[in-house]
Amino acid sequence: MLYLIGLGLGDAKDITVKGLEVVRRCSRVYLEAYTSVLTVGKEALEEFYGRKLVVADREEVEQEADNILKDADISDVAFLVVGDPFGATTHSDLVLRATKLGIPYRVIHNASIMNAVGCCGLQLYKFGETVSIVFWTDTWRPESFFDKVKKNRQNGMHTLCLLDIKVKEQSLENLIKGRKIYEPPRYMSVNQAAQQLLEIVQNQRIRGEEPVTEETLCVGLARVGADDQKIVAGTLRQMCTVDLGEPLHSLIITGGSIHPMEMEMLSLFSIPENSSESQSINGL
Amino acid sequence: MLYLIGLGLGDAKDITVKGLEVVRRCSRVYLEAYTSVLTVGKEALEEFYGRKLVVADREEVEQEADNILKDADISDVAFLVVGDPFGATTHSDLVLRATKLGIPYRVIHNASIMNAVGCCGLQLYKFGETVSIVFWTDTWRPESFFDKVKKNRQNGMHTLCLLDIKVKEQSLENLIKGRKIYEPPRYMSVNQAAQQLLEIVQNQRIRGEEPVTEETLCVGLARVGADDQKIVAGTLRQMCTVDLGEPLHSLIITGGSIHPMEMEMLSLFSIPENSSESQSINGL
Repeated sequence: MLYLIGLGLGDAKDITVKGLEVVRRCSRVYLEAYTSVLTVGKEALEEFYGRKLVVADREEVEQEADNILKDADISDVAFLVVGDPFGATTHSDLVLRATKLGIPYRVIHNASIMNAVGCCGLQLYKFGETVSIVFWTDTWRPESFFDKVKKNRQNGMHTLCLLDIKVKEQSLENLIKGRKIYEPPRYMSVNQAAQQLLEIVQNQRIRGEEPVTEETLCVGLARVGADDQKIVAGTLRQMCTVDLGEPLHSLIITGGSIHPMEMEMLSLFSIPENSSESQSINGL
Repeated sequence: MLYLIGLGLGDAKDITVKGLEVVRRCSRVYLEAYTSVLTVGKEALEEFYGRKLVVADREEVEQEADNILKDADISDVAFLVVGDPFGATTHSDLVLRATKLGIPYRVIHNASIMNAVGCCGLQLYKFGETVSIVFWTDTWRPESFFDKVKKNRQNGMHTLCLLDIKVKEQSLENLIKGRKIYEPPRYMSVNQAAQQLLEIVQNQRIRGEEPVTEETLCVGLARVGADDQKIVAGTLRQMCTVDLGEPLHSLIITGGSIHPMEMEMLSLFSIPENSSESQSINGL
């Protein structure tokens, strides 16, 4: 049996009791290591689970799926995923491959950023399509995702923005020379995301007609589910400078029409500053 | 401290290790009992947690929140919620009341139906606004939610339909006579939801222009996260008769443009029958 097990978002103890029981009895345990991170490292997980973990990065999951699935028809193999196995990144590829090999699979769910963002008080059912914001480079500055943000906002829906994670990146030089030397991991902050968004807003501005402006109410979230999680509500402009600390960060662009109960919850997290939308929060 | 703890979706062991530790040390533990159900009852939870649970229905949470929060500033109180505390139903009201009383709170997240539906293979980021489908009566047959379904589908987004739950309902007679006698709980099945939807589709049909028809590809899910979960993919018409067994059920109306990987996952769950969209799944 192949078990896809969500680890939740905080630390080692965010695994479910069911998930932990399975991890402890599986013959091999893999840890997916390219889409998200917990606030603790592999070693802390190994100590708590009492099991050695094999870290599987994107390359390995894609190229060595057969190794992961080896003997999973006669023994139990666990594949651990931060968040939920079908959250922000799905692991359909592994499931489909297992199914073709006649290996049964089972999903043990957990919280993912896709539902845990509800803790800011914005109602999950009012979220529209989720977007990803990638690190811009000098030559690649994609803006097309912004159409989805605008469409969501025009329809009164909030937009969850998942922020870029760069793990196991190679410099151009190392890539060309075939050297498997990797750059340190990079995680996009709410500041960086907001700055890129602000540039798009400024590029696209048609006087008075843009549904998203620098005054649009946003929510910045960091380390959701961890002991030191941080949530701030304020304008897009404020998101450019607010300090949320360590990764992972996420950003929500609100959908315009906000229910009074949502606004009251957001007021718990408001940034005290002189701006129209944050004033309306603080005024509650 | 007030702890809002998600129980996940299956049985007693779907609580997180962190959640279980908190439950075992809190001075009082409440179980929210009006928005969802696990496949096991209160007694099974009490046995596994080793704690007595106080069931809090909607009335109690709204009217006796002060009892729930009593002494939570000097002791620890747990409020257990099936799924995630900020999933389909949010518990902002309790958080806001606690905050006003100066009681700190903490959320221990878990899977909710809002993210666990990803297990059918449809990508969560492509879901639009979530809708609720309520039981129709002879005199009350709301259709307005359907505009959101159509809008989602026109924008290529899937729609998660949460299906009605009626708990602690009183008959009109008992209500008038003030007798606290309650009808047996009712949970809407995928069949019932699909039949209501089909009626709306037929009412609203403008020849060839409706984005949702009886041939629209849907996914029915039952008991997501439990050992005996069931997922079926087929047309809206097929959803009217497919047998998914015991509650809880959910229904997804797909968004029209489906990624090949999504379609391949759905093919694992397809109903073998002669219809255009299910043929295209089975043909994979």
